[in-house]
Amino acid sequence: MSSLDPKAEARCRNSFARQPMMATIGASVLSVKSGEVEIEMPFAAHLTQQHGFLHAGVLATLTDTACGFAALTLMPDDAAVLTTEFKINLLSPGKGDRFIARGRVARAGRKLMVCLGEAFAQSEGKRKQIALMSASVMVVDTSTGLKD
Amino acid sequence: MSSLDPKAEARCRNSFARQPMMATIGASVLSVKSGEVEIEMPFAAHLTQQHGFLHAGVLATLTDTACGFAALTLMPDDAAVLTTEFKINLLSPGKGDRFIARGRVARAGRKLMVCLGEAFAQSEGKRKQIALMSASVMVVDTSTGLKD
Amino acid sequence: MSSLDPKAEARCRNSFARQPMMATIGASVLSVKSGEVEIEMPFAAHLTQQHGFLHAGVLATLTDTACGFAALTLMPDDAAVLTTEFKINLLSPGKGDRFIARGRVARAGRKLMVCLGEAFAQSEGKRKQIALMSASVMVVDTSTGLKD
Amino acid sequence: MSSLDPKAEARCRNSFARQPMMATIGASVLSVKSGEVEIEMPFAAHLTQQHGFLHAGVLATLTDTACGFAALTLMPDDAAVLTTEFKINLLSPGKGDRFIARGRVARAGRKLMVCLGEAFAQSEGKRKQIALMSASVMVVDTSTGLKD
Repeated sequence: MSSLDPKAEARCRNSFARQPMMATIGASVLSVKSGEVEIEMPFAAHLTQQHGFLHAGVLATLTDTACGFAALTLMPDDAAVLTTEFKINLLSPGKGDRFIARGRVARAGRKLMVCLGEAFAQSEGKRKQIALMSASVMVVDTSTGLKD
Repeated sequence: MSSLDPKAEARCRNSFARQPMMATIGASVLSVKSGEVEIEMPFAAHLTQQHGFLHAGVLATLTDTACGFAALTLMPDDAAVLTTEFKINLLSPGKGDRFIARGRVARAGRKLMVCLGEAFAQSEGKRKQIALMSASVMVVDTSTGLKD
Repeated sequence: MSSLDPKAEARCRNSFARQPMMATIGASVLSVKSGEVEIEMPFAAHLTQQHGFLHAGVLATLTDTACGFAALTLMPDDAAVLTTEFKINLLSPGKGDRFIARGRVARAGRKLMVCLGEAFAQSEGKRKQIALMSASVMVVDTSTGLKD
Repeated sequence: MSSLDPKAEARCRNSFARQPMMATIGASVLSVKSGEVEIEMPFAAHLTQQHGFLHAGVLATLTDTACGFAALTLMPDDAAVLTTEFKINLLSPGKGDRFIARGRVARAGRKLMVCLGEAFAQSEGKRKQIALMSASVMVVDTSTGLKD
């Protein structure tokens, strides 16, 4: 990985702050590197399913967001990201005190980026991987707008 | 589709009511048939991404839930559902007044069900498909517990 | 579905004929409609896995190809298709005399098409669905070449 | 990774040899470790698509097979593997002299394994990643048979 474009971290953090859903799930940015972003959130009862674990959709939200921001770190200033698809394999229940998602760019194309996402549950300081994601992220030129 | 087991609708609605995440996104059950469930939710600002549209993760939550409940309608009384993976293709932005997700069972096995999910945005009475999902749902015997 | 562009069927059949892999699996075009293509192949022992059934990868090849051609029917003359990802759920073993794959365009964008694929096994005249696919197909302008 | 069960490598190589499709694509086993298997194949004209590159379905066949065998290394003697779904992101065209697929177990459950697959194209000794896969592999007890 090359070193991070100095503007890229600010762009990620600004974009993150403009997503109301991130506040709804209590998420915050943990680290921003070139092509790799980690975000985290605490366990919260209002985000659970019927067995008291984190809802799979919340874990997908967290991991998809990490993937999208990982892609954003490698894009030009005037570009925006658009996830067109993702797949998540749920490896273990969403049990833990905190949840961390890491997105990494596996392919950095001019128009299409492919990201690999991993999600972890943390309890008493121990991390366990609980999900695996792959995602396609399109690069959208905001100066001309989305024409598709 | 065969007619719905009379207990299955109650089981779905009870399970739905025990998922705090469904209240967080304002979702409600629209219809329950044998092997097919529809749920819906209104647009809400706290569930959006940076462009003001519904976050893809929320749409995934809604559609995954419809798929899981569709599977539940075909299961024995003492069984529970566990989504092990899903993939979502995002066809159009999450713009609309209401969002509806429909899950249908494409394969009903004793241990594994495969569901097809579709999500729609509704504006001024018009429905537009905005997402396509496929999901694997394991059948878990709650009398013996999850042994895997 | 709108009626098929008269050149589109010829374009599909020509492109199909230029794919050596289609001859290797014995596939032929069954039908070409606007946004929907069916292709088929007979069972063949050299395409099986260790239990004597059609290898899942062959079924994926057949279904991915049907999806790509379905997308091609909706594209301008000078465009080519490029599958960037697909997911397949294998519903039942690849047992049968013939296998048929049907691809349909679920979203027809200017740059990106999303297709839904279904594969069937046919034995003694009966069809059974054995796979479900979703695929992303990029539209590539052959006059300028692939720049990504 | 724990050390490889001495019987597991033989089981993998025997199972591989019983898959006619592996001979059709010219594949051979490159390495077998506990939870990780690599297989490879040379470029071959009869396996190409219309641009002369390896067909995506062949790459999927190779990578799915590596994932299935990776799962097999961690299973009891009397168990068989059954891939129930996989997704592949195609990162670059299938151009090269040889193709190598590596499957690794990301989650080793008693009933369900989740594998991560990577495929590489090799030209003049250089490897380039060209695909990313995730796959669900069910553990099937061959003594009782597949009951689902």
